[in-house]
Amino acid sequence: MPCSSPSPVHGLPGRFITFEGGEGAGKSSLAEGLSRALAARGIDVLRTREPGGSPLAERMRGLLLAGAFNASGPQAEAVMFALARSDHLSKTIVPALARGAVVLCDRFFDSTRAYQGARGGVGPELLDELEREAVGGCRPDLTLVLDLPVEVGLDRAGARRAGAAVDRFEQESLAFHEAVRQGFLATAAADPRRCRVLDATLEPAAVLERAWAHVAAAVGLDAPRPA
Amino acid sequence: MPCSSPSPVHGLPGRFITFEGGEGAGKSSLAEGLSRALAARGIDVLRTREPGGSPLAERMRGLLLAGAFNASGPQAEAVMFALARSDHLSKTIVPALARGAVVLCDRFFDSTRAYQGARGGVGPELLDELEREAVGGCRPDLTLVLDLPVEVGLDRAGARRAGAAVDRFEQESLAFHEAVRQGFLATAAADPRRCRVLDATLEPAAVLERAWAHVAAAVGLDAPRPA
Repeated sequence: MPCSSPSPVHGLPGRFITFEGGEGAGKSSLAEGLSRALAARGIDVLRTREPGGSPLAERMRGLLLAGAFNASGPQAEAVMFALARSDHLSKTIVPALARGAVVLCDRFFDSTRAYQGARGGVGPELLDELEREAVGGCRPDLTLVLDLPVEVGLDRAGARRAGAAVDRFEQESLAFHEAVRQGFLATAAADPRRCRVLDATLEPAAVLERAWAHVAAAVGLDAPRPA
Repeated sequence: MPCSSPSPVHGLPGRFITFEGGEGAGKSSLAEGLSRALAARGIDVLRTREPGGSPLAERMRGLLLAGAFNASGPQAEAVMFALARSDHLSKTIVPALARGAVVLCDRFFDSTRAYQGARGGVGPELLDELEREAVGGCRPDLTLVLDLPVEVGLDRAGARRAGAAVDRFEQESLAFHEAVRQGFLATAAADPRRCRVLDATLEPAAVLERAWAHVAAAVGLDAPRPA
């Protein structure tokens, strides 16, 4: 079942929904729950993620997390994220939206803005330009921002990792993660038509139910319950 | 005037023509001459180049030539070239081919293969995979390889530069540039339907006349002279 009309944002028949928030906020679990609820209604769903989501962008993700670009500087990192995003869009997201699918994407450009903004070295004007150059008119119809106190999120991420290696984004200081959180909240406040902030300290079922109301509206469904 | 039929290679109405070869071989002058000859016949022509050719890929080019990725390693460099190529294709080349233009592109994937192959650190299998992931079915209809002894090319590039800074690709040794030359010739020998080798020691007018015969055939013109 395709969506009932073209997206008012990008003009393609599908719907583009992104999930944003810090470590341990529950983005993956929420996307999984929404994916099941949509599929149960016969809707074509594609789950994807950033950095990554296409063969080349996944290679870039692997190199990035392994530290290949640590010496390249924040501007180079921002350009590479934008290039990977462009490939992800043209190879994965746009074809899915063109066939009428609902695309659920774990992180998108708001994460670049929040993390690069917190790290410094790249001004908001350059981030705006890179976003325009990478994304053009293919912006999300809906962005769900999962908000959580930093300590809670890092505890959850640590428990989930259970002894596995800490990646470079988890290694940063508490102050850094707090700046990331404030970055996401600032983005949501600046773009209230697109973004919905959800309290991620709630039980997963409660987060899913609240998220479902927004997703159902974006997709054009009127069913009140996710499951 | 559009081309007479869809390209047999990528199925779009335009024609995709690339120029390859070492430093100082005369790729830009040849593209300029062919562009004028095509435009004089009322054909829509787009000139572009790699690395670069789209806003994001041009940013990557600037960072690369400034050395931002010198510490990243040859695999990371190859992935970045592929990402930049994907953006260049989706933002610049494919839209031009879709409207029926003849795209003249100074360097494309054969340069990645020749330079990365000469530098080492990235095997031909990975280069094949990156090419497939970046380019998909949008391969050139015609590739003109300008062949020249290495010393002649570097002398020309040095004279053209006339005191300006040497870029990182010109700094390499003679043996490196010889390996690049052999890489281009090996590519041309392996793909004779797509590639035409031109003797770039000839006078520019003679190179243009020989190139024109191949371009006219690719575009579907029968006019024998470029000007």
